[in-house]
Amino acid sequence: MKQVFTGIAELYTPRKRLERAALAVQDGRFVWVGAEDSLPEEYRDWPHIDLGGRGEGPSAPGGRRGVVPGIVDAHTHLVYGGNRLGEYLKRARGESYEAILAAGGGIYATVRATHAASEDELYEWAKARAALFLAQGVTAIEIKSGYGLLPEAELRMLRVIRRLGETLAQRIFPTLLAHVVPGGWEREKYVAMFTRELIPEVARSGLAEAVDVFCDEGAFTLKETRGILEAALLHNLKIKLHAEQIAHTGATKLAAELGALSADHLEQSTPDDWQALAKSGTVGTVLPGAAVILRKPFPDARAMWDAGVRVAIATDHNPGSSPLYSPWLGMQLTLSLGRLSAEEALIAHTENAALALGRKDLGRIEVGAQADFVVVDSNSALQPLYRWGHTPIHAVYVGGRRVFPPG
Amino acid sequence: MKQVFTGIAELYTPRKRLERAALAVQDGRFVWVGAEDSLPEEYRDWPHIDLGGRGEGPSAPGGRRGVVPGIVDAHTHLVYGGNRLGEYLKRARGESYEAILAAGGGIYATVRATHAASEDELYEWAKARAALFLAQGVTAIEIKSGYGLLPEAELRMLRVIRRLGETLAQRIFPTLLAHVVPGGWEREKYVAMFTRELIPEVARSGLAEAVDVFCDEGAFTLKETRGILEAALLHNLKIKLHAEQIAHTGATKLAAELGALSADHLEQSTPDDWQALAKSGTVGTVLPGAAVILRKPFPDARAMWDAGVRVAIATDHNPGSSPLYSPWLGMQLTLSLGRLSAEEALIAHTENAALALGRKDLGRIEVGAQADFVVVDSNSALQPLYRWGHTPIHAVYVGGRRVFPPG
Repeated sequence: MKQVFTGIAELYTPRKRLERAALAVQDGRFVWVGAEDSLPEEYRDWPHIDLGGRGEGPSAPGGRRGVVPGIVDAHTHLVYGGNRLGEYLKRARGESYEAILAAGGGIYATVRATHAASEDELYEWAKARAALFLAQGVTAIEIKSGYGLLPEAELRMLRVIRRLGETLAQRIFPTLLAHVVPGGWEREKYVAMFTRELIPEVARSGLAEAVDVFCDEGAFTLKETRGILEAALLHNLKIKLHAEQIAHTGATKLAAELGALSADHLEQSTPDDWQALAKSGTVGTVLPGAAVILRKPFPDARAMWDAGVRVAIATDHNPGSSPLYSPWLGMQLTLSLGRLSAEEALIAHTENAALALGRKDLGRIEVGAQADFVVVDSNSALQPLYRWGHTPIHAVYVGGRRVFPPG
Repeated sequence: MKQVFTGIAELYTPRKRLERAALAVQDGRFVWVGAEDSLPEEYRDWPHIDLGGRGEGPSAPGGRRGVVPGIVDAHTHLVYGGNRLGEYLKRARGESYEAILAAGGGIYATVRATHAASEDELYEWAKARAALFLAQGVTAIEIKSGYGLLPEAELRMLRVIRRLGETLAQRIFPTLLAHVVPGGWEREKYVAMFTRELIPEVARSGLAEAVDVFCDEGAFTLKETRGILEAALLHNLKIKLHAEQIAHTGATKLAAELGALSADHLEQSTPDDWQALAKSGTVGTVLPGAAVILRKPFPDARAMWDAGVRVAIATDHNPGSSPLYSPWLGMQLTLSLGRLSAEEALIAHTENAALALGRKDLGRIEVGAQADFVVVDSNSALQPLYRWGHTPIHAVYVGGRRVFPPG
């Protein structure tokens, strides 16, 4: 399939800004990106799609629109049963997340609701959430297990995620998550089951690309985490970490040492941790929803960026600590509270987020990359970062095919 | 017109929470509010409207929906030309709002764009913004002038606001704002014109209900502010203030002393200021958009509330310091960064916000109040406070009449 896209007022690659740009796409990948009036001869007779808004009113003056890469959300818990509105209201009144978790609420409440739901229900609910994300321009989503805990329940979640990957418009990246030790299990036995049974089974069946561990107070210790990640590496799975959210545990340095794709959260991380990330190339993923909603210190994204860390932003969408439905709001919070510039925040939710998935061909508008992009309903490509609480998206493309709006 | 509304799973008045509630409305006002199964005999043969979602899927399980009072936005600058995306990007890179204002940008840039627009354009753009606010449940909006500066240009803005009030579904509250001294004017001459010509003219023509002054560094001094507000009181106009945003000027105490409806911003306010507000009953309005977007200290809403201040929240929608389109996001930011509970945040954007407009019959679901309310697309009335970046609104009523969705 060959196509040329025109009518672009402003385009972010995301690292470069182009005006009056055009894109040529063949078989789902960009084959040419540049100024519209320098479109090479060879693409001129390809079918043209005008992304502009001629005759469509004041939202796209000049008849052209902005384009940014497809948004990559590299840390979500999109599959779950129930909601935790009640817990959210309690926390807003001052109860702590840690106390609620320790009392058998929090993650454990979602585990119970997820167990109680059928696979079809879990699929349908996640599908509805993914549709809201698509309307915001999210073209790639990592989804973690972790609300099953018991081996069969974890595999069930991963099967739901596989089904989402087979049916949704977005690219789906499944991750096996060691979240917490389930009630009634001895810690060592659970870790042994996870490393000796679950990880090998997941690797064999191809149900996950990566393994993640919630290394923190109330979850897994640094030593347990190392054991789980080493088992994952042994089975050729990629690794990532929930690091330094509630307490400083040393998880970030472990992530760097083991060559993890990313260390995520980082609310309690230190300059030493950032140096380790910068050195290893491990992505540092900031989760603004969890930081703000749990009233934690906001990760110092500015200092991390300046220390040479590849900073990513993700929604961490989950029903407890981060019921966040908008990557743009995450970028805006990081811009205000983490002092990134708007241009950096966009890089953090596209190109750098794709690196947190181990993918150099996503989150970029450049020759060879997958043709995933977002058409903004404005001639300014960064308009969605400016409008807090209203995201003007005109259309979303995955692999050169329009997937939003449908039809 | 007589109507009974049923199918309500949960209702916040906002101070009280009712389950399985019903409402009776006559001629635009609530005449009965209570539990559905205790609906008095006299209302049983009135026409019934079921607000529930029977057969409409999983968003309203149990066939019932949540209801909250119409959201009141008591501080906006909704009428303006242009946008300030470019300035927003600069500020995100570290330039200060104060430096941009001092260099003739900021407010002055919007003044130029507003002068350049026709009355019809200003009306159409504001109407489009008001429609986005209506879809979020905002049933009453205060709109300030202040981008005209010159007397005729200020009157022109107020005429646009009057036209909005005559044509929009929402209730519109017009305010004359003394924003900054225009270029080429001596300060004393401008203040004299404002107090001796503009305020009397506005009072005579009924083009505004209130007068507001931006009392701050780079805007009006405390002494100038007192002069303007006293002139307003002399002409029987209500008064409000932009207070303690950039510098601590003493504006909050002046607001309390003169019996202003509200003192707004309060980023730099002190416990002394809060005591003055609590004593006078002047509403303290927090503007989370401006605080977060300008990277200012977030007003300590928790401490203000505990000091007895009637705390309100408003969007402060404007193209510079607060391009905020969602009152729910404002409530969420205040909940996380200002440590209010969700229930308090709702009171702050309904009942207390109405007091900032001098209205006890708005922002409440109680007998005698105007029948303005929001039907939430969930059986939990506070669901929109839980979902960050996605607001599930099913319908909006003003004076008992459905105004959203249209038709």
